[in-house]
Amino acid sequence: MSLLGPLFRWDAVDATLSDRAGVQGMLDFEAALARAEGRAGVIPEDAVIAIDACCATDRFDLVALARDAAFAGNLAIPLVRQLRILVREQNEDAACFVHWGATSQDAIDTGLVLQLRAALDVIDAEIERLADALAALAEQHRSTPISGRTWMQHAVPTTFGMKAATWLDAVLRQRDRCASLRDRALALQLGGAVGTLAALGDKGPAVAAAVAEELKLSLPDLAWHAHRDRIAEVATTLGLCVGTFGKIARDLALHAQTEVAELHEPGAEGRGGSSTMPHKQNPVASAVVIAAATRAPGLVATLLAAMLQEDERGLGGWHAEWETLPELVRLAGGALHQVTETIAGLRVDAARMAANLEASQGLVFAEGIQLALAEKTGTSAEALVEAACRRARTEGRHLRDVLAEDPTLARDLPPIELEHLFDLGRYVSVTGPLIDRVLRRHAAANQNRRGRRA
Amino acid sequence: MSLLGPLFRWDAVDATLSDRAGVQGMLDFEAALARAEGRAGVIPEDAVIAIDACCATDRFDLVALARDAAFAGNLAIPLVRQLRILVREQNEDAACFVHWGATSQDAIDTGLVLQLRAALDVIDAEIERLADALAALAEQHRSTPISGRTWMQHAVPTTFGMKAATWLDAVLRQRDRCASLRDRALALQLGGAVGTLAALGDKGPAVAAAVAEELKLSLPDLAWHAHRDRIAEVATTLGLCVGTFGKIARDLALHAQTEVAELHEPGAEGRGGSSTMPHKQNPVASAVVIAAATRAPGLVATLLAAMLQEDERGLGGWHAEWETLPELVRLAGGALHQVTETIAGLRVDAARMAANLEASQGLVFAEGIQLALAEKTGTSAEALVEAACRRARTEGRHLRDVLAEDPTLARDLPPIELEHLFDLGRYVSVTGPLIDRVLRRHAAANQNRRGRRA
Amino acid sequence: MSLLGPLFRWDAVDATLSDRAGVQGMLDFEAALARAEGRAGVIPEDAVIAIDACCATDRFDLVALARDAAFAGNLAIPLVRQLRILVREQNEDAACFVHWGATSQDAIDTGLVLQLRAALDVIDAEIERLADALAALAEQHRSTPISGRTWMQHAVPTTFGMKAATWLDAVLRQRDRCASLRDRALALQLGGAVGTLAALGDKGPAVAAAVAEELKLSLPDLAWHAHRDRIAEVATTLGLCVGTFGKIARDLALHAQTEVAELHEPGAEGRGGSSTMPHKQNPVASAVVIAAATRAPGLVATLLAAMLQEDERGLGGWHAEWETLPELVRLAGGALHQVTETIAGLRVDAARMAANLEASQGLVFAEGIQLALAEKTGTSAEALVEAACRRARTEGRHLRDVLAEDPTLARDLPPIELEHLFDLGRYVSVTGPLIDRVLRRHAAANQNRRGRRA
Amino acid sequence: MSLLGPLFRWDAVDATLSDRAGVQGMLDFEAALARAEGRAGVIPEDAVIAIDACCATDRFDLVALARDAAFAGNLAIPLVRQLRILVREQNEDAACFVHWGATSQDAIDTGLVLQLRAALDVIDAEIERLADALAALAEQHRSTPISGRTWMQHAVPTTFGMKAATWLDAVLRQRDRCASLRDRALALQLGGAVGTLAALGDKGPAVAAAVAEELKLSLPDLAWHAHRDRIAEVATTLGLCVGTFGKIARDLALHAQTEVAELHEPGAEGRGGSSTMPHKQNPVASAVVIAAATRAPGLVATLLAAMLQEDERGLGGWHAEWETLPELVRLAGGALHQVTETIAGLRVDAARMAANLEASQGLVFAEGIQLALAEKTGTSAEALVEAACRRARTEGRHLRDVLAEDPTLARDLPPIELEHLFDLGRYVSVTGPLIDRVLRRHAAANQNRRGRRA
Repeated sequence: MSLLGPLFRWDAVDATLSDRAGVQGMLDFEAALARAEGRAGVIPEDAVIAIDACCATDRFDLVALARDAAFAGNLAIPLVRQLRILVREQNEDAACFVHWGATSQDAIDTGLVLQLRAALDVIDAEIERLADALAALAEQHRSTPISGRTWMQHAVPTTFGMKAATWLDAVLRQRDRCASLRDRALALQLGGAVGTLAALGDKGPAVAAAVAEELKLSLPDLAWHAHRDRIAEVATTLGLCVGTFGKIARDLALHAQTEVAELHEPGAEGRGGSSTMPHKQNPVASAVVIAAATRAPGLVATLLAAMLQEDERGLGGWHAEWETLPELVRLAGGALHQVTETIAGLRVDAARMAANLEASQGLVFAEGIQLALAEKTGTSAEALVEAACRRARTEGRHLRDVLAEDPTLARDLPPIELEHLFDLGRYVSVTGPLIDRVLRRHAAANQNRRGRRA
Repeated sequence: MSLLGPLFRWDAVDATLSDRAGVQGMLDFEAALARAEGRAGVIPEDAVIAIDACCATDRFDLVALARDAAFAGNLAIPLVRQLRILVREQNEDAACFVHWGATSQDAIDTGLVLQLRAALDVIDAEIERLADALAALAEQHRSTPISGRTWMQHAVPTTFGMKAATWLDAVLRQRDRCASLRDRALALQLGGAVGTLAALGDKGPAVAAAVAEELKLSLPDLAWHAHRDRIAEVATTLGLCVGTFGKIARDLALHAQTEVAELHEPGAEGRGGSSTMPHKQNPVASAVVIAAATRAPGLVATLLAAMLQEDERGLGGWHAEWETLPELVRLAGGALHQVTETIAGLRVDAARMAANLEASQGLVFAEGIQLALAEKTGTSAEALVEAACRRARTEGRHLRDVLAEDPTLARDLPPIELEHLFDLGRYVSVTGPLIDRVLRRHAAANQNRRGRRA
Repeated sequence: MSLLGPLFRWDAVDATLSDRAGVQGMLDFEAALARAEGRAGVIPEDAVIAIDACCATDRFDLVALARDAAFAGNLAIPLVRQLRILVREQNEDAACFVHWGATSQDAIDTGLVLQLRAALDVIDAEIERLADALAALAEQHRSTPISGRTWMQHAVPTTFGMKAATWLDAVLRQRDRCASLRDRALALQLGGAVGTLAALGDKGPAVAAAVAEELKLSLPDLAWHAHRDRIAEVATTLGLCVGTFGKIARDLALHAQTEVAELHEPGAEGRGGSSTMPHKQNPVASAVVIAAATRAPGLVATLLAAMLQEDERGLGGWHAEWETLPELVRLAGGALHQVTETIAGLRVDAARMAANLEASQGLVFAEGIQLALAEKTGTSAEALVEAACRRARTEGRHLRDVLAEDPTLARDLPPIELEHLFDLGRYVSVTGPLIDRVLRRHAAANQNRRGRRA
Repeated sequence: MSLLGPLFRWDAVDATLSDRAGVQGMLDFEAALARAEGRAGVIPEDAVIAIDACCATDRFDLVALARDAAFAGNLAIPLVRQLRILVREQNEDAACFVHWGATSQDAIDTGLVLQLRAALDVIDAEIERLADALAALAEQHRSTPISGRTWMQHAVPTTFGMKAATWLDAVLRQRDRCASLRDRALALQLGGAVGTLAALGDKGPAVAAAVAEELKLSLPDLAWHAHRDRIAEVATTLGLCVGTFGKIARDLALHAQTEVAELHEPGAEGRGGSSTMPHKQNPVASAVVIAAATRAPGLVATLLAAMLQEDERGLGGWHAEWETLPELVRLAGGALHQVTETIAGLRVDAARMAANLEASQGLVFAEGIQLALAEKTGTSAEALVEAACRRARTEGRHLRDVLAEDPTLARDLPPIELEHLFDLGRYVSVTGPLIDRVLRRHAAANQNRRGRRA
């Protein structure tokens, strides 16, 4: 147990990366290898039966495995040794055919790939759920005005639906990246001692093809023992995903500030409280997601740095991956789940959004006024509107009122035109068609997916 | 000038990322925007002509640009200001239509995308050259024995052609990643102040489509001002590439060691010398590539960390990208060029490879002997061969001789069989078909490419 | 020139790290080496004179140096070659005594250390200026109430002077770290080919001591060619500093938000404008500092990763340092200067601080009320105050009014006591003595420093 | 349990960072706070007794703690709640005085500091053991010749004692850094909700001083809730340490290569074997240490990136520390222990060192010959010796023999002088005094330490 596990991680992803799942992944490899070698006539059929029967995590002593791995330098050595003992109890002659022609890394890497496949399945499904929740937000708030903010300052108005659509747009790209990752990353590792499968003679390629088939993994042209781009790409892809989750969480945290208060995380009683301040409702999910986004880049960097693995098997670089990649997958899973739950239950305060827009004294309309004026008077418009903005700010007045006082401006922008320029509707209406683009893309992908399943 | 530029970088990539190229990129955006707005009837045609005519870097004062950017906070603000002045000189009324409806980030990001496209063109071509050089090596040395090494120790024999094919295999994957990156990353940025193009009213989408057409960039559904996954994916993809280049360079450096001496960088007279030791021939290219591979992960991490950009435009995160991504592209370009030159001129010492294999007293054949014995005697083979290896090592004798003394072994493995197990040919022959797989993939891609060009 | 240089860097630090300063650093080493070897009788006195006279950057061809370094693999090789030619023109016999007994890395590393010393001098002085500005803020605003914020939510009241004192407290720690760094990091590098100075026979130690004396650098027990902890510690120390600058800038950016508006960067006319929105006053300095703080961790990580340098001189790791450390120093310098200028000219809106405190409906006093109540009624106080907070929030009323309605509470907390619990003075008064602690530490350090200078 | 824990970590450090130790750290804080508040008259004495009695991890439900922390957002909230319930069972009135005036972060941070102190104690002691082992190696091999290697190529001869002394020199610097870290980092955290201890009125400072005294921690001027340089400096210091351990391990791995074979890790039977190759003796410890050194930079970067914590308590940055710092400490502990065990039992093959030196055909003496010749003939010596080296290499002859053939050279360097230049003794003798410097520093520190203990 880890005390902070439930805060930072998500059961559904965690389960795929547990110690037990890791051992079973290696055993699934060993069993598939035996079956494939049986099919190719490399090892006797009764050895296959004996090996296959023993490849169940429950029969292994994990404490001994951990202890012996510290001595041997990897998990596969003691695992193969325990497996041989189990097989021998059943069939003395079969024991020597355990792990036949393979190397430790074949078992470890293929086991990892099996775990990653399971984890990515869970992640893909949750990304769909996040996309659905964002699409619903975008649809629902397509006409809810909110201040667009740049450099953390009010800029010009937009809609909250547009904001949600922009989040969705990024999430859909991440979903696509995860999908295209699978083909490349979920590949069998089987090369024997140095990647040539020499121990299997000319039957190496056939055995490898059969193992890939058994495990439903793609069959690479060559073993990739010391070329870790597949592994590293899992990391970079998840790193990109977590970056997007973090961006959404940063936005949520900013909008949840006391002075802004436009968005709030779904609050169960007592969620986000304080050990001392009874009024607190801290945005816990945002903190968890931002924490993950703070940690992911360092983990990705580690996996990139670990790519310089020597010759046919690295010394140190490979070992640096073992805990780093699962940790990254777990953090990504935790962040994804938290952001999904938060978006799905997000409390939106449209009235506060309107009030905040109003509070910046019409300055959010300054760009539009300047452009309207520029069309009539040329580049001098900029200075005029800038000065008016400064006055509005200094004197604490509405920009509309400051501008209304300017006699030259009145000539160029009659009151009715000016009023129109302060109309939020102009800013709201343009977002609808943009939001629809993304919603259509999302709907099409959903339909496509359902089609594939059917 | 930077004193270390020529060492770490490559002119062909550098040229695409120079300050001048950066300014021209933004100006290409401004000109395309004007043309597109002209086509859409948003701005008058003579303004288009005037703006288009002024968008040439030569007419800009770069020193003033740099100075004013420090004050304004970005390059687009002073650039637009200089452009307005130039346009005004030509057509007073046109000046106000410069940059119409766009925001600084539109110019900066689209300019960057144009630069990245040019850089990726150069990189893609050089990766092809690297792949060709690796394919030639793999073909030429398909039967050159070399010791496979795991954990930096002799493992079992393989061929140098197989090693080169494995390098090639990874390089081909990186080429594919770069190709699939282009579609996603080379997208127009055009959203105006907060991504809605509100200043263009209902003509925003049409203008954006026209600008994308003008610049031959893909047209995204939405502006991506504060969603930086496209930018970050350029970084992660190049980070993966540099990892592969670094892995190859690490291998080269190891094989160039005085005691190993199997591979040598192409040596021009005096290349890799020392300021004090006249006998030195240092592997300079490997050092440069490993240096790039040491630096890239930190830069990738920075770009991932920078993804948490606030609301509709980030504060700090966006700015963190500006120098980091070009730096990464430059380092990737430099590393790629060095590794390509090195592979293209690599000096291979096949005799030394054979001698080194021989020097480890037959231990590289231990796995094969154990497996052969195991088929006959079961799991006891392991202990027997392990003991023989230990004796060979301790007594400095050849494993063949140690084994020949063992009476029980002689029974199970008659001398003629034993001799066969020490035959390098068994290890060489299996690599041919594997090498061919990769060569075929490479040839097919080349043909495909030529087809596309024709 | 780099277009973004003036935005992200600071002339005063940049000058110490220019290409010219780098060449002069190596030449200063070569001259000092010659003088020291003259004093030790290792080389003839007229050679010393000739060498010393030629060690001026102006006499060197930097373009050729850059070109030749790309070929040789480092800058010292072509530098020594150019120096020999210059010396030979003056004294044929002296030329061979250039760089006598030293290795390239001796010149490069010692040159770098000399540059770092100059850069740290500038940085130390600016940190003092920052500390002075923070001390002034802390003093001036010792009684200016502001909402303390945790998790980006109003917590309990504090003073802005306390906030500034806390910033100062961290800056003083960073100043101390920079000071203690100097002793360790600013050490001579002189070991000859492999660190033993064998080429100087038994005169090696004496020559090294004399060079250290000439250059006023500390003399290490051993050369540290492949042990880079000194270099890496410069990086980690600056990384820590930039983290503190970034924390301050993050606070400034948050307080400058439109809805908060408590602090504003000193605004020159047009500083932080927009290319399209005339009302914008973007916090440019905060963005620059946050950008530096986003970039620094990756650079620090690179220098830590580069520590694994092989044997007596690394291959790749050393080279990874060459551009990375200067870049980090430059970014640290730029960030420091921006944060100092901003703090020195910070515009503080105390009225807005008070208004924001008031706007959260008395919730910031909830902790104090709960504790007061708990002393009388035990742990049930928590639930009672929590419920009142919830009601205040839901109904948009002041906590005082909600509490005043509760008949049971009135018994335990009579109106006069309750009123007292809503008194800001209780929160303001406790900060004075805390602020004074830090101000005293700052004043003592200043006095100490003046003492050392006198 | 984690399957890879025993491989990558070390029990002695791990124990200080376990979940149980974490909970006890927070409880030690709560108990000390109660005692201090009792001494200051802030809470009643019988509350102190009740609270103190309950602060034992065994009485807490850790599973519930983990579950509730996921909901509350930190561990202190549910911990305080459980503690209140335990106290209430004992003394109804005391329960409300649990955690009086403190905030969650006070408990979490101070608890962490207590854990770090325990971990650093273990690490410091092991660094001493490593230093002792290195000193023994340096002493023992002060006259064992070995080839110095630069850029992974033979350079000039040195001694293995010198190499060990250089390792020791770096380790002693790291020991000093760890020592100076303690004063800065091991500071009490106690500030209440926003760092002012307002809830304690004017007794805040006295309570804080008393808690620091109770826990034997240094008392900072101010709380440091959102200023994380202390925490980050623990990370950077350990990052530097791990860099040095990694450098040593990289050297060990290189010297253990089959072709070099000068150093071997202490080999227990079966340590570093292979799942398939019976002859393998993989350098497991080196791999573990290099893996740690590959992972540490990313973790350090994370802690630096996490420094930008908002206002009086960060959102996300603080949370990013919680698992990252303990992970780094564990990896540092594991790496340190492995490197110490390896150095303590290192198998040194002096004969092989001599043989390898001999195998590079005298080229390692080229620098010395060139310098000797240069003194007589000036700068032309360089070209002459360089040419001779090339010939030696090309023709596979000893440099001595090539030089002996050169008639002009014979005039300048008579055979007896030439012979002297090929004498290893010249290179060995210079290292003794250098080694002694470091050994003396080590001995002095040891004596000093013993003095302090006595």
